[in-house]
Amino acid sequence: MNKVHNFSAGPAILPQSAIDASIQALQNFSGTGLSLIEVSHRSKEYEAVVAEATSLVKEILNLNDTYEVVFLQGGASLQFDMIPMNFLTPGKSAAYVNTGVWAGRAIKEAKMFGEVNVLASSEDKNFNYIPKDYQIPLDVAYYHCTSNNTIYGTEMFDFPNSPVPLICDMSSDIFSRPFDANKFDMIYAGAQKNMGPAGTTLVIIKKSLLEKANTKVPTMLNYKIHIENGSMYNTPSVFAIFVCMHTLRWIKSIGLEAMEVRNKAKADLLYAEIDRNPLFVGTVVPEDRSRMNVNFVLTNKELEEPFLKFCKERNLSGLKGHRSVGGLRASLYNALEIDSVQALVTAMQDFEKLNA
Amino acid sequence: MNKVHNFSAGPAILPQSAIDASIQALQNFSGTGLSLIEVSHRSKEYEAVVAEATSLVKEILNLNDTYEVVFLQGGASLQFDMIPMNFLTPGKSAAYVNTGVWAGRAIKEAKMFGEVNVLASSEDKNFNYIPKDYQIPLDVAYYHCTSNNTIYGTEMFDFPNSPVPLICDMSSDIFSRPFDANKFDMIYAGAQKNMGPAGTTLVIIKKSLLEKANTKVPTMLNYKIHIENGSMYNTPSVFAIFVCMHTLRWIKSIGLEAMEVRNKAKADLLYAEIDRNPLFVGTVVPEDRSRMNVNFVLTNKELEEPFLKFCKERNLSGLKGHRSVGGLRASLYNALEIDSVQALVTAMQDFEKLNA
Repeated sequence: MNKVHNFSAGPAILPQSAIDASIQALQNFSGTGLSLIEVSHRSKEYEAVVAEATSLVKEILNLNDTYEVVFLQGGASLQFDMIPMNFLTPGKSAAYVNTGVWAGRAIKEAKMFGEVNVLASSEDKNFNYIPKDYQIPLDVAYYHCTSNNTIYGTEMFDFPNSPVPLICDMSSDIFSRPFDANKFDMIYAGAQKNMGPAGTTLVIIKKSLLEKANTKVPTMLNYKIHIENGSMYNTPSVFAIFVCMHTLRWIKSIGLEAMEVRNKAKADLLYAEIDRNPLFVGTVVPEDRSRMNVNFVLTNKELEEPFLKFCKERNLSGLKGHRSVGGLRASLYNALEIDSVQALVTAMQDFEKLNA
Repeated sequence: MNKVHNFSAGPAILPQSAIDASIQALQNFSGTGLSLIEVSHRSKEYEAVVAEATSLVKEILNLNDTYEVVFLQGGASLQFDMIPMNFLTPGKSAAYVNTGVWAGRAIKEAKMFGEVNVLASSEDKNFNYIPKDYQIPLDVAYYHCTSNNTIYGTEMFDFPNSPVPLICDMSSDIFSRPFDANKFDMIYAGAQKNMGPAGTTLVIIKKSLLEKANTKVPTMLNYKIHIENGSMYNTPSVFAIFVCMHTLRWIKSIGLEAMEVRNKAKADLLYAEIDRNPLFVGTVVPEDRSRMNVNFVLTNKELEEPFLKFCKERNLSGLKGHRSVGGLRASLYNALEIDSVQALVTAMQDFEKLNA
């Protein structure tokens, strides 16, 4: 079978080393003679997996000892509820920036728990840019942003110096480039883009933020409980954390500096072709274009379906835009190789010749 | 490598067919040329998995059209919160029976949301029996019970005719025997015992109960949202549901009647040896002994560690009791073959000879 080039927005392409390790562990996990999915999460062999995954996150992001790291269930979506439940303290409001569907969902949920101050929004231009002119108020409980907008293809490359706790949803660009993680009070990310399979969510919280948390929070939605129990208050998503650990090993082996070089090269190659090829046009303002999710449309909308079909015939998979926005989207996560992007660019050029 | 006999309480032994299917799908899922953990949850190939898993649950349990079935994240533990959030309606209280650690946690969580009426408890005898003499009040929002108590090894074989919605945590004995599922208003089960790997939770709800649900529930904790979106409101635990689907296929191929015969034979064999062998004693009253989790101790406590070591040398794994109760526990879930139980019984007999 020919190689399938996987541009899926998530769940998405993973390093082959992590997939191979998973296959091996399903056969015989860590010499136990049992499959990874049949062993106790409290076995010493599996506890070592959670410990290593946790420690790799800290190491790769250069987090100091003031941070806690846990793996939870429920995706980033459950974090949209857990954040205000834990950190929207009585008498305070929370500040959010609306940069798309996921930021919007985070705002909607926070409003169920208290007052929300939407500092800025790019909804006026269908979320094709990152708002930058706003002040973070001094009296809010926290400021929340979304670093990369998977659906609209925008990405924040600079983060404000926040006078209040800075919370960021990094689901779709975490580990894709170096950044100063110690600037944040909380970072969270659903695993299924740059870190692993669906089924687990990475949550990083600064101890000083935890100290301010609400006390009457249901147990499973209480960060302190999960942290005190080292991601094992209840049975964790065993398989997903295992794959994350192997993906994190792979990320560490490359390093975030080199990862950024890889990711920038892939994005530059594709955006250059979008800008050159008269059949295509990018939907995002150039300075906010995401390196993870490249959104574009055909200048002649009637060619969209034929182009998708043309791509499919060449084993270029997952290029259809999100059902809420349409168009095309190529997701270029960490594990995607540049030869896949080159294959897409070649397809765009060949399609141009066919439709000249 | 010799076969390891897996008595783990959960995550636990799974049918080999499900493990083999997972290995194959990690290599190439459903002819996509991609790994199962790299494909979109909205691909038609994966949507077929969720649809089949859902439909198999309905078929195996003979559920009629008044039921909804979804797969959620967060384990049974998150259900302890979601149940009162959705169904403990204002002005009502909820009735619970306390049969052990998990029932106790369910009660503790419900108390965060409203008034809880604990109808009965077996805490007076360290949860070694199932309370039976109690009346379910007519005016409560629902009645909640736990069919099998994994930690203490008791099991409910009869369920009351409840005058109010009947909600049951069946995490550790679902699909182990036939029962009248249509008697229940809600059944839930963490997958990692009889149904699949950790990372997904089966939730079955009667439509009439949903109609009574609270309306202001955070989105990710709102059953209606997950049902309306067919387990796909957010990215589901893709791998775990896939393994569940294959385990459900295996359960269907055996049938619940035959499964009960298998499970009863295994439990009878082990309890008979516990009752015969002077070195061992069961901890649960005979009529409430679980077929899933067999709890026992050594009459001479000093022989406990030597016996566990003796078992380990014979590849009998996962026999240590839960850290909160100690002693020994052999979990005999669906996928465990009777030859594993026979190997344990032989070990008990050989240990008896050594310590005569």
